[in-house]
Amino acid sequence: MNHFRFFIPTELFYGAGSLEKLATEPLPGKRALVVTGGNSIKRLEILERVLSILQSRSVETFLYDRVTPNPVKEIVAEAARLARNENCDFVVGLGGGSPIDAAKAIAMMAANSGDIWDYIQVGSGGKKPFSKPGLPLIAIPTTAGTGTEGNPTAVITNPDTGEKVGMSCAFPVKSFVDPELTLNISPSYTAFQGFDALFHSLEAFISVRATPVSDVWALESMRLIFAHLAAAVNDGMNLEARAAVSRASMMAGMVICISSCTSAHLIEHSLSGIVQTLPHGEGLILISAAFHALGAQQIPDRYALIADALGFTKPGQTIREKARSFLTALEDLKAACGVSERRLSDHGFSEKDIDRIVRNAHLIAGGPFTRDRYEISDESLAEMIRASL
Amino acid sequence: MNHFRFFIPTELFYGAGSLEKLATEPLPGKRALVVTGGNSIKRLEILERVLSILQSRSVETFLYDRVTPNPVKEIVAEAARLARNENCDFVVGLGGGSPIDAAKAIAMMAANSGDIWDYIQVGSGGKKPFSKPGLPLIAIPTTAGTGTEGNPTAVITNPDTGEKVGMSCAFPVKSFVDPELTLNISPSYTAFQGFDALFHSLEAFISVRATPVSDVWALESMRLIFAHLAAAVNDGMNLEARAAVSRASMMAGMVICISSCTSAHLIEHSLSGIVQTLPHGEGLILISAAFHALGAQQIPDRYALIADALGFTKPGQTIREKARSFLTALEDLKAACGVSERRLSDHGFSEKDIDRIVRNAHLIAGGPFTRDRYEISDESLAEMIRASL
Repeated sequence: MNHFRFFIPTELFYGAGSLEKLATEPLPGKRALVVTGGNSIKRLEILERVLSILQSRSVETFLYDRVTPNPVKEIVAEAARLARNENCDFVVGLGGGSPIDAAKAIAMMAANSGDIWDYIQVGSGGKKPFSKPGLPLIAIPTTAGTGTEGNPTAVITNPDTGEKVGMSCAFPVKSFVDPELTLNISPSYTAFQGFDALFHSLEAFISVRATPVSDVWALESMRLIFAHLAAAVNDGMNLEARAAVSRASMMAGMVICISSCTSAHLIEHSLSGIVQTLPHGEGLILISAAFHALGAQQIPDRYALIADALGFTKPGQTIREKARSFLTALEDLKAACGVSERRLSDHGFSEKDIDRIVRNAHLIAGGPFTRDRYEISDESLAEMIRASL
Repeated sequence: MNHFRFFIPTELFYGAGSLEKLATEPLPGKRALVVTGGNSIKRLEILERVLSILQSRSVETFLYDRVTPNPVKEIVAEAARLARNENCDFVVGLGGGSPIDAAKAIAMMAANSGDIWDYIQVGSGGKKPFSKPGLPLIAIPTTAGTGTEGNPTAVITNPDTGEKVGMSCAFPVKSFVDPELTLNISPSYTAFQGFDALFHSLEAFISVRATPVSDVWALESMRLIFAHLAAAVNDGMNLEARAAVSRASMMAGMVICISSCTSAHLIEHSLSGIVQTLPHGEGLILISAAFHALGAQQIPDRYALIADALGFTKPGQTIREKARSFLTALEDLKAACGVSERRLSDHGFSEKDIDRIVRNAHLIAGGPFTRDRYEISDESLAEMIRASL
C-alpha cells in the first residue's frame, strides 16, 4: 500500500503512574461528566482518585456509573441527557472498552440531537452524519486490550436487533494510559483483553488497509503480547508485564485507525451482539483458530512476515511453513494464557445460530466484507463458525 | 524509558500523487499566504500547480517567495506582515525545510506581536511564550529529509549573532507528502537531505528521550534509508526509491518529536549558523564519523541494537563489534551516495573556528547538552570538530 493517511490527534500519556498527569495537564473545561461502569472495587478506588484529582482542580464532576458491558443505546441517551442538563463541557471515560466507548458516544450525543442510532452508518442505523462536534473527551483505560484510547471508534449495541456496531465518533483529546490501573484484573479477563489487542494488530497487518507505517507498530505490539501476556495472566501484579501489554494495547488501538480490523472483528461483534454476556476478546479467541487457518492458507506471505519478525521461523522454511509456524505460536500463546479449551458452544451457540451469525456479520459490515485480502464466502464463514462450536 | 507522551496531531497524506488531495481535503480558510523559496524551475512548476489548485477552490492566494536557505528572522517579519495586511487565514509552506520552517514561524508571527526572536527560548532570544495560536499551516515538502511536515519545530537563523536555533511553533494541520515532488533533486542534495532523515532517526534512537514507540519508527526509517537512499541519489527519477526515502523522512520527522535529536544537531546548527552556505544535511555528514565513533564507544548497546535490526551483524559478534559494524555500514552508505570525501575545511572551517563552534553549540542548546546518554565535554567536542576538519 503506497498511499495512506496518518491522523491520530489524541495526546497520549503512557506509563506506570501516568494517571497523576491528570492533576497537571490542561483540561478542556470546568464541568465534567465522568462515565464509568463502576462495578468493581478496584475500579471504585480508581474512580475516587479520578474524581478527587478533578475536584482538586476546581472541576465540578457529575457521575454516570451505569455503563454495562457491550453498552447499549439507551445508556448513551440517558448519560447524554445528564451531560446536557448539567451543562457539562467535557466527558471523562473511565474503565474498559465499554465505558470509554459509551463515553465517546455520549460526548457526541451531548451536542447532537436525536438518538445515537440515527448516526449509525450500517444496518438499521439512521445513517445521518453528526451535525456538531462532540464535547471533548478524556479517556482513562483501566484494562489493556481495546486500545480505544487511541482511536475515534465506539462499539454500541442495539439490544432490539442484536446489532453490535462500530461507529466513528471523535478522538479523545487526551488519554492517560497507566498500566498500574490494570493490576488485579482476573487472569481470564487479562487474557481476553490481551488477545483483543493482539487481534487488532494481527488484523491490521493482514487488512487491505495495512501500510508500512501501521505494519511496524502492529509487529511491535504483537511482539509485546507474545512476550508478556502470559506473564500478566499468570501473575496479575507483574507490573512489567502489565506495562508491556498496556503499551501493546495502546499501539494496537492506534494501528487499527491507520489500518483497520478485518471481518474477524465483524464476526465477533455478530456473536457478542447475539449473546451479550460473551466478552469480546473471548469471542475473538473462539473463532481465531478457524479464521486464521483460512488466512494463513489464502495469504501465507503476510502470516510468514509476522512469523519471521517475531522469531517463530526456522531457517529453510517455505512461506507456507512459516505461516503455519505463526498458527502454532498463536495456539501456544492461548495455552500459556489458559484460554485454549473454550468453544462457542460453552456460550450456548449451536448449529441453528449459524445463519443468524453470518447474516448479522454482514448487517454490521453494511454489506460484503471489504477489509480482507481474500473473499470469505458465506459458506466459508459458516464453516468457520461450525468449526468453532 | 517507561513513560512517554505521544502527540502528533497533524493529518498526513503520503504517497505518489498525494498533492492532488489538496484539491479535495477541507481547507482551514479562504485566504492563503503561500510561502516558498521559488528559486528552482521544478519548484516553480509545483508552485503553479499549488496556486492553481487553491484558486480552483476559491481560495485567494498571496505569494511570499523570498525564503532563503537557513531562513533568517527578517524574512519571518516581512512575510508575517504580508499575511496580516492581506488578512490571510492560513499559511501554506511549500518547498524544503527552509520554506516550511519559515512558514511555521510566519504562521505564529501573523498572530503574535513583536519579533520572532522575542519568542526564541535560548541564547539571545527573548524567551517569551506565544500569547496566541498561529494561523493554521499546511505543509507541502518538495524534499525528503527534514521531516518538518510531521512536527512543530522550526529552525530559524539570526545572522547578527550566527545563532541557528530550533523553536517550537505549531504542528501543521495537514501535510501532503508526495514523493513525486522530490524527483529531479540533484544527487548531492538528495544525499544531504536523506542523511538528515537518517540522522533524525539515529539520534532519536540514541537520545535519552527514546521510547519503545519512537524506536520502532526510527528503526524502520533507518532501514528504508539504508535500503533506498543510494538508489535515489544515483537515479533521481527512481520513484520507488524516492517514495521510500520520503516515507523515511516523514517518519523520522515524527520520531524526533516523540523522542528528540541529540547534540549532533546542535553542533551542526552551530556550523551552518556560522557558514550559512553549508547545507544542514552535509554538516551532519561531516561530523558524523567522529560523533558516532564516540557514541558507539560510549553506548555500544544502542548502536548494536540498530546493527542487529538492520542486518549489519554476523553471528557471534560482541556488542562492541556490532556497534562497529553499524559505523562501517554508515561509511559504506556515505560512499554509495558519493558523500564520503568531504571535510569541514572544504567549507572554510579551520582550527581557529573550533572555540566558536563549541561556544555556539552550547548557546543554541541553552546550556549543557541534555539529550545525549553520555556527557560530551567541550574538549571532546573540540576533538570531534578537529577530526572533521
